[in-house]
Amino acid sequence: MKTKSRSDELKSIMKNKNLDVALISNFENQYYFSGLKAITYSRPILLIIGKDEESLIIPALEEEHAKEKTDIDQLYVYHEVEGKEGETSYHEQVKAVLSTLKSGSTVGVEYNALPTEITLMLKDENAEIKNIQEDITAMRAIKSKEEIDMITHSGQLVSNALKHTIENAGENKTELEIDYYGNEYLFKEIPKHFPDSTLDYFVMSPSGLERTNMPHVFSNTRKLRSQDIIIHSRQVGLNGYRAECERTFFIGDPTDRQREVFNVMVAAQKAALDFIKVGVTAKEVNQKALEVIKEAGLEEYVVHRTGHGIGIGVHEEPSLRFDNDLMLEAGMVFCIEPGIYIPDVGGFRHSDTVVLKENGTELITEYPRDIDSLIIK
Amino acid sequence: MKTKSRSDELKSIMKNKNLDVALISNFENQYYFSGLKAITYSRPILLIIGKDEESLIIPALEEEHAKEKTDIDQLYVYHEVEGKEGETSYHEQVKAVLSTLKSGSTVGVEYNALPTEITLMLKDENAEIKNIQEDITAMRAIKSKEEIDMITHSGQLVSNALKHTIENAGENKTELEIDYYGNEYLFKEIPKHFPDSTLDYFVMSPSGLERTNMPHVFSNTRKLRSQDIIIHSRQVGLNGYRAECERTFFIGDPTDRQREVFNVMVAAQKAALDFIKVGVTAKEVNQKALEVIKEAGLEEYVVHRTGHGIGIGVHEEPSLRFDNDLMLEAGMVFCIEPGIYIPDVGGFRHSDTVVLKENGTELITEYPRDIDSLIIK
Repeated sequence: MKTKSRSDELKSIMKNKNLDVALISNFENQYYFSGLKAITYSRPILLIIGKDEESLIIPALEEEHAKEKTDIDQLYVYHEVEGKEGETSYHEQVKAVLSTLKSGSTVGVEYNALPTEITLMLKDENAEIKNIQEDITAMRAIKSKEEIDMITHSGQLVSNALKHTIENAGENKTELEIDYYGNEYLFKEIPKHFPDSTLDYFVMSPSGLERTNMPHVFSNTRKLRSQDIIIHSRQVGLNGYRAECERTFFIGDPTDRQREVFNVMVAAQKAALDFIKVGVTAKEVNQKALEVIKEAGLEEYVVHRTGHGIGIGVHEEPSLRFDNDLMLEAGMVFCIEPGIYIPDVGGFRHSDTVVLKENGTELITEYPRDIDSLIIK
Repeated sequence: MKTKSRSDELKSIMKNKNLDVALISNFENQYYFSGLKAITYSRPILLIIGKDEESLIIPALEEEHAKEKTDIDQLYVYHEVEGKEGETSYHEQVKAVLSTLKSGSTVGVEYNALPTEITLMLKDENAEIKNIQEDITAMRAIKSKEEIDMITHSGQLVSNALKHTIENAGENKTELEIDYYGNEYLFKEIPKHFPDSTLDYFVMSPSGLERTNMPHVFSNTRKLRSQDIIIHSRQVGLNGYRAECERTFFIGDPTDRQREVFNVMVAAQKAALDFIKVGVTAKEVNQKALEVIKEAGLEEYVVHRTGHGIGIGVHEEPSLRFDNDLMLEAGMVFCIEPGIYIPDVGGFRHSDTVVLKENGTELITEYPRDIDSLIIK
């Protein structure tokens, strides 16, 4: 992945803010700036972007991986066995690196990610901290052509995986089982067409009146029954860049009331998808979906925003929320997913991923949205 | 999940440390103390344990879920739509709750998890922070009978999933494809036997000389070839409690050198498994495995510790590291996984999960460890 222009941009932000150095602790941001997509677990990693040098504090286990995937100038490796040259403790390694800062240095950090222990170490070094999280968020919100291509591939994959799940769903199958049909597709298909790629994916299929009313629960062993409503939700991240596709569907015929609410949800999503483009604000998009829902008298059943950005993160900024005045730009990628959740009637939500371009939008996920296509007989 | 005794224990620690309140931001710890296993994404959650009351700051999307899964006294819900009663911003909600603290309050926080932004808010309220991360880590290290039962179930599942992958692996299949055989087993089997359960799993199968030398890389689309060495690594977490099983295996006959190193690794793992018990120290277990490797003259190829605790976390304390003097206790659960990584020869690592009991140990993962069982013809 081409990361140099990204760290160059960060360095120019740092210059404007009079920052001596930036510490990046969020792993998504680490991937964004360094190209290292690490499995970290219990072994932390810290990315340090200085004016002239970029360095990583990493566990010995990641040393070869970092050399292969990044152009980082300096690797500060901490070991977990005796007798190797260098530190054996992450914290000591961080302390050692921070002790080279001049007293009074100004350090850019992510306020929502940097753990307290490092904040306190910086204080011990008389460093001043400044928040750069929003600058990084803003950078990540505008995707390059390379990033959009990756997300578009993920869009095709997630749409097909969703298709495999929905078309194989049925009575007496469990939520976990129906998830599996789409996963199977991914595991068989990706190796054929995307050599040397990694796959991240997320899937959940809450089913029934009670569980579809909880927008975020893990799939479990509940068996689908006749007359069930299901929200099947998927993300795929090919090489770390994600797209999302979700469909609400039924086992057997929905009730009249369900049909009614479903159609409002579909109309709300369509209104937002038709409206979204470069130059409108995030909150206007939210509003467009909400207007449809309000007109149907269902606004009390709305519990979340109309959508969110996507990329390396499962959810990213910009948030399509009622209070977000941000003007949308080319290169932004959104999931459009207005939801309606009514106790004893069900939860209703589709989600699709759309790329904003100078001259329009491109929908990169595809599966029928109308109710008749989403009733499994 | 029975969480009351856990928060009672934390409250007694808080009393000893003169803490007025504890803020829990790590999501594993939130699950441990509250029973809420949330999918949080971009919407943060904060658990607040006071002397008399426990509360959660949660997004509206998690309100029903939290009511179902927890006995929390107070839910501070933040909304993301207009017109609902209460806050619409997580940060404002946190500020509002923290502003009720008396000036000079002492607040327990996890130093490695609490983000800087909340550290700064606490400072604004003239609160003093103290680190309780190690207290929580120590609590989580000793598992209850309920937790051990859950981990034991995960041990059976992960062993069987590993079996399905290894026995279906072969030339021309990719890393991602072989992962899938074990995943398929999980998705079919779990719904049958574990009603109302959630499934977390992790899997990777680095293959070939270069990739097995990187202990932590995601599976990719590399095709297995004749003479390949593969490290297949799996975790399964049934209802959030994990077990791990890993095997190094071969497609076709290994070289004499690979056979030699493999047998040293197996002997090292056996030495640690035979030795580990209540009353020995973490570093002694590490040492036992290392002695075998040293005797074979391979210690320069050891890059990580002999093992780690496991439970809600993928890796937990205690760490079986050269510098850990901790004495092991009944109720601890470990993954024993000494590894040897030799450029141009391969990476070699098995992992098994073992429970420490007063009167011995119980190995809860099972699959043959000897080389002849691990050569796919």
